[in-house]
Amino acid sequence: MRRPHWPQRVTVVEVGPRDGLQNEPVYVPTADKIRFVDALAAAGLPVVEVTSFVNPRRVPQMADAGAVIAGIARRPGVRYSALVPNQRGLDAALTAGLDEVAIFAAASDTFSMRNIGQDVEASLATYAAVCRRADEHALRVRAYVSTAFGCPFEGEVDPRRVAEVAARLIEMGAFEVSVSDTIGIAHPGQVGPVIDAVAARVDRGRIALHFHDTRGTALANVLVGLEAGIAVFDASAGGLGGCPFAPGATGNLATEDLLYMLHGLGIDTGVSLAAVVDASLAIEPLVGHPLSSRYTQAVKATRATSAS
Amino acid sequence: MRRPHWPQRVTVVEVGPRDGLQNEPVYVPTADKIRFVDALAAAGLPVVEVTSFVNPRRVPQMADAGAVIAGIARRPGVRYSALVPNQRGLDAALTAGLDEVAIFAAASDTFSMRNIGQDVEASLATYAAVCRRADEHALRVRAYVSTAFGCPFEGEVDPRRVAEVAARLIEMGAFEVSVSDTIGIAHPGQVGPVIDAVAARVDRGRIALHFHDTRGTALANVLVGLEAGIAVFDASAGGLGGCPFAPGATGNLATEDLLYMLHGLGIDTGVSLAAVVDASLAIEPLVGHPLSSRYTQAVKATRATSAS
Repeated sequence: MRRPHWPQRVTVVEVGPRDGLQNEPVYVPTADKIRFVDALAAAGLPVVEVTSFVNPRRVPQMADAGAVIAGIARRPGVRYSALVPNQRGLDAALTAGLDEVAIFAAASDTFSMRNIGQDVEASLATYAAVCRRADEHALRVRAYVSTAFGCPFEGEVDPRRVAEVAARLIEMGAFEVSVSDTIGIAHPGQVGPVIDAVAARVDRGRIALHFHDTRGTALANVLVGLEAGIAVFDASAGGLGGCPFAPGATGNLATEDLLYMLHGLGIDTGVSLAAVVDASLAIEPLVGHPLSSRYTQAVKATRATSAS
Repeated sequence: MRRPHWPQRVTVVEVGPRDGLQNEPVYVPTADKIRFVDALAAAGLPVVEVTSFVNPRRVPQMADAGAVIAGIARRPGVRYSALVPNQRGLDAALTAGLDEVAIFAAASDTFSMRNIGQDVEASLATYAAVCRRADEHALRVRAYVSTAFGCPFEGEVDPRRVAEVAARLIEMGAFEVSVSDTIGIAHPGQVGPVIDAVAARVDRGRIALHFHDTRGTALANVLVGLEAGIAVFDASAGGLGGCPFAPGATGNLATEDLLYMLHGLGIDTGVSLAAVVDASLAIEPLVGHPLSSRYTQAVKATRATSAS
């Protein structure tokens, strides 16, 4: 059964190679990252966030950003993106020949200060400059609002504050804003009010949702998002990536778990779930722990049982 | 935000000591099981399914059923129950002095044959006799309908078949029927139609839902159940218990994850989430693998980070 008010089609934004691998403690070799990105694009994922152009001393996992971009086989119709924290990152993305970048602002000053050394207002000034320069080069900019459902330092975050930051990011030129539960604390009761607050300032078609499954609520949150008319969801193959504030805990919502639910609901994504499972299982030995995707672990267990 | 059509209060039926530990490959010592049950009751859980009176050669994990029942400290107001597959199990439960037992029928003949050696019709005849005898002793009977969302052998299961089995169980005297996703395959799109089919035959107030989180969809399924007016949900502390058809995969929905979502929605359960986490963490070293509860893993990781 598909409820008539759910979107018929959903865009899954694959963030595993970036948000996933960036938060894994190990360094995955460049060639494996390239194979991973190519496998995800081949699986039908329409958007792949490939890497981050960040300070390699701070984030050594992403030190090979340029080499990864240079190595992937660009598939027609797939959008490849990279996170850029500032002008320097944008320059690197331009040099790499990307068509799309992502920027991230927080809804909480304390989080913003600790994460990038600027409060929210200062970070928005930085991003406004990034957007202007991106526009000069016809580069599309996607934006995240992090800590949109709670801050590890400040606790509750006012949905109107989230809406304000989201609106500013759209005004400065972002085509879409991904409202993000950075620490995986969101429960379904929050999702409606946060979406409603943001939708009062930003066209609903420009809102994406980015959930972490740290407390198991990610798919329930997605369900509320679908009911609120949201049709773009971020996910990470295998559930790659941890929670930066609770190392060892589960991070991003797994792409496979999201696809299993969406396809069960009769919602079209254009993505092969089986192909994403294979891409995840190929990367699993390199990250040094079992992937957190429940779906992929069930597939693995079923295969092991069938083989025995 | 609590949506007005969600129940204000939910009864969480704790099945960890039974459905959880029965599906763990290791044998947990009797004294630890008793401590576990007592801790869960002390946490405020209103119903605890303590053990199974099953053939100890088939299920050695539950061979100490009588000793566990004898050892627990009965808290006033808490319902203690045990699974009984037949008259012999019922006799043992009566001897142990329980006030409530649980029976389980499948909605799929192949599953029923493989699980208990009887097809569904034969199993219902067995349970009718169990119910008659339970009634003579003023014992309350709760019933499960397993494979209600899919069968590992037959695939899809007709919701009308689920409804028929549920109605027969209520007619023979069960006070509640727990519609169960035995293999953790249910997605939220199925939940509404299955509930609607069962509710056409059984009073909605007598319907409980029992989800496994094998593919990550359990809480999304609960959310749909809440929206359909269901107010009784089964869960297993820590997410104890695997999937019998995919050993190594995640089994029961974790009580902690369920409580986190329900409390977030403003729904009253009367249960202390922190106390359930402590009960789960006390049992974790005995089962030999990390608990599958995302919430409890996040708590563990946060504590480890704070301590370092």
